[in-house]
Amino acid sequence: MRNDNSSLFDYDAVFIGGGGAGRAGAMYLRKQGKKVLLIDRDNHFGGKCPKNACYAHHLFYDCAVELDFFRQFAGKLWWPQFDRKVPIRPVIELFKAKRDKTYEGILYGVKNSGMDYILDHEARIREPNVVETGQKEITAGALVVATGARAHLPPVPGVGLKGVFTYESLIEQLDYEPEKVLVIGASKVGVPYASFFNACGCETTLVDRVPFLTFLDDEVRDYVIHGMVGRGMSILQETQVQEIMGRDRVQSVRLRKGGQEYVVDADTVFISAGMIPDSEIVQHLGVERGTNCEIRVNSRMETNIPGIYAAGDVIGPPMEQWKARKSGIVAARNILGQTTELRFDLYPEQLHSTYEISWVGLTEKQAREKFDDVRVLKMGIKDANKPGITPMAERMMLMGHIYPEKTGFQKMLYDGPSGKVLGLHHVGYGAKDSFSYLAYLMEKGLTIEQLAGMTELFMNSSRFIQMARQAAATPPSPQGVNA
Amino acid sequence: MRNDNSSLFDYDAVFIGGGGAGRAGAMYLRKQGKKVLLIDRDNHFGGKCPKNACYAHHLFYDCAVELDFFRQFAGKLWWPQFDRKVPIRPVIELFKAKRDKTYEGILYGVKNSGMDYILDHEARIREPNVVETGQKEITAGALVVATGARAHLPPVPGVGLKGVFTYESLIEQLDYEPEKVLVIGASKVGVPYASFFNACGCETTLVDRVPFLTFLDDEVRDYVIHGMVGRGMSILQETQVQEIMGRDRVQSVRLRKGGQEYVVDADTVFISAGMIPDSEIVQHLGVERGTNCEIRVNSRMETNIPGIYAAGDVIGPPMEQWKARKSGIVAARNILGQTTELRFDLYPEQLHSTYEISWVGLTEKQAREKFDDVRVLKMGIKDANKPGITPMAERMMLMGHIYPEKTGFQKMLYDGPSGKVLGLHHVGYGAKDSFSYLAYLMEKGLTIEQLAGMTELFMNSSRFIQMARQAAATPPSPQGVNA
Repeated sequence: MRNDNSSLFDYDAVFIGGGGAGRAGAMYLRKQGKKVLLIDRDNHFGGKCPKNACYAHHLFYDCAVELDFFRQFAGKLWWPQFDRKVPIRPVIELFKAKRDKTYEGILYGVKNSGMDYILDHEARIREPNVVETGQKEITAGALVVATGARAHLPPVPGVGLKGVFTYESLIEQLDYEPEKVLVIGASKVGVPYASFFNACGCETTLVDRVPFLTFLDDEVRDYVIHGMVGRGMSILQETQVQEIMGRDRVQSVRLRKGGQEYVVDADTVFISAGMIPDSEIVQHLGVERGTNCEIRVNSRMETNIPGIYAAGDVIGPPMEQWKARKSGIVAARNILGQTTELRFDLYPEQLHSTYEISWVGLTEKQAREKFDDVRVLKMGIKDANKPGITPMAERMMLMGHIYPEKTGFQKMLYDGPSGKVLGLHHVGYGAKDSFSYLAYLMEKGLTIEQLAGMTELFMNSSRFIQMARQAAATPPSPQGVNA
Repeated sequence: MRNDNSSLFDYDAVFIGGGGAGRAGAMYLRKQGKKVLLIDRDNHFGGKCPKNACYAHHLFYDCAVELDFFRQFAGKLWWPQFDRKVPIRPVIELFKAKRDKTYEGILYGVKNSGMDYILDHEARIREPNVVETGQKEITAGALVVATGARAHLPPVPGVGLKGVFTYESLIEQLDYEPEKVLVIGASKVGVPYASFFNACGCETTLVDRVPFLTFLDDEVRDYVIHGMVGRGMSILQETQVQEIMGRDRVQSVRLRKGGQEYVVDADTVFISAGMIPDSEIVQHLGVERGTNCEIRVNSRMETNIPGIYAAGDVIGPPMEQWKARKSGIVAARNILGQTTELRFDLYPEQLHSTYEISWVGLTEKQAREKFDDVRVLKMGIKDANKPGITPMAERMMLMGHIYPEKTGFQKMLYDGPSGKVLGLHHVGYGAKDSFSYLAYLMEKGLTIEQLAGMTELFMNSSRFIQMARQAAATPPSPQGVNA
């Protein structure tokens, strides 16, 4: 399975970093019969996804939902009374106990592919075609830098105190049970972690220097924030963190909002203030980098140095698994001489509170800026005592029967004249997976008429098909009867 | 909003039966400005879906999953020890307490549409354009019969004993707590109900005169049956029910398998033996009906009598909400003179145990009969101690971390030469909703290459995109390296 020019170099390609990007790219090239080496400085492949990111976040999210159910349904049906603090460390221990198995599963795939690999070794790039690792010098037809990114620690006084964590350190270092947690940053990491701490019964405060979640549609945002506040979380928007205070460990945090300063007690601070690409490995080579240290690549994942590619989080946002994988594969294809570009036009997004929040396309505000005749369809009720249909389906039924106003919210935007779908938004459960397919359909020009003609697998979580059917039945009207 | 020929008839169309079919058709016509009357003999619209079918089934399914979690995770993390029988009647009461609200929400939509409606009255069709209800005689340009179907009670001795239920009577009449339940019929109704009874802690036996679930792919079927047996359910395939026995209420059931007869104790028998269309209303008109009393219609929902249409469960299987709605709308469109046909080519299907089981397209056996080079991709592990990746995502994380072998199973079939996707199968949670969109994509000729290029919203429940990416990376091979 060696290719023809394998004699020129030790490997056709060397991938440095075996996370989502490096592994996907290496597997792709290997399957095309190329000689590939995958190196990681950690003792496992998969990068941060199985180590402390996707897997952990999703486990904690699932716990948050189940705990939310315990609290919402306490004393109802078979649910016990439930008003207690749930320890966090056993959840982390559960995660870590499984983690080695996950690593093993990933390694199994790498081994089976027939590629060469090196774990637990730093790589150094001596020159574009030469990598050193340990005592070895390795030559490569192409290099792919896929070294990822690490959590950013902002320069706040007290950030080094015991009790201050990022998602990385929390899993490795938490050695007590948090009671009062302050989460800095209402990001895609901060919101789910705050929801998890809160669901575990910690007194939880979420703070950000800007208004929260402004990337969401306004009504979706209101529903999500209302849900967090309704579950007892404290919310501090447009609030600066001045200092994390304490003798040798966190005791409180000094904040400033407007002209006012005040102090919130906390034994734990969780910081989610973005990511910094781990690009030091190319610093000496003249590879161009951006202001956040991200490696600059073109749409073919080529850096400015011929033969050096980069992929994954090291090239900057969005920090999403699909981007990691696709960019790794795009690098691999270009190494094969198949000119391939990575596009970022339209992709599905997600956020977790104790709900799944999924969306693709435009918010209502964005849509109204671009289109004259935006039609809006919505589902979900604000008041349990008012008639209306709640978006019930798998996992929403108990909530729908006990607290219908907590069952979720969804919204669909389309262009009146063309019927083209502009934005899809969902808060609830069970619809997230669909957004991968909905994004593809929107990319192909999905219309209300097409949606209306689809076959819903009732009771479906995303009611977009039924909503579209209502809209499609309506003759165009200047009064916007679908609104 | 009256149309031009409204003077000829009292209504442009009268819909008899306000379930999924009648209501969708009536709403459609009304939105086109037609004068419409919707009649139901019950005291609510929505038909059996909100009364005792979809809503109830999904609530009970959700309870089954949550109770399964209570039993699987008992004593772990914050879960209490849990080894007790959970009463069923409070769940039914919860359902019934919400049901009136659901009816109210549906009625609100009907009222808002501006159509006329009559509840709580039987309709009689005097002749094709004349309907009588109460003392009134109503003329209609077209009639749509959407009277639904009722649960079939097979002629088994003892079927009239107290303690024998269908899904209809269970909700209205259960006045004790079942302990030992025998479910007759491993159907799309019988399997979820058996799973619910079992999850509630009833000693549960599921019996069918034929092998179970042969409409599923063999491996999917194995996984599902293995899951039910592993949760303590007794499974009796190819077993005849001879007699339901008891003095004035069920005490046991006499069964026959092969040449052997035996008796199983049961205080409750739940029968899911199919549906009988409620078509008596057209008996005197010479409307053609099939052997199961279903009204015969063409693809435009026309009966053999001009002006009389039929839609929904009264036209026979599949008994699915999407068919009800679409057939109602197809009737409405044809009444409007827009020639429209209902197609049944490719539609997504679902079944619930304590898992969601969703599929579309061919099973492996069916695919191999039609195609020479069928490729198979699978995910899921049979043995928690073997390396491999489990299909984890929302709602699967706890199971994935505690019992990985119970996390689910999925399978994808495609044609090697063309890359065309032939079948998609999923057992787990969180992917069901996607099958509405996947069915549409398959109808349009979905290929492995197209799937591979999509953007997965990681961690996605349906891993078809990632699986396709692996396959797409593989050069065609006679050895079938993807299998």
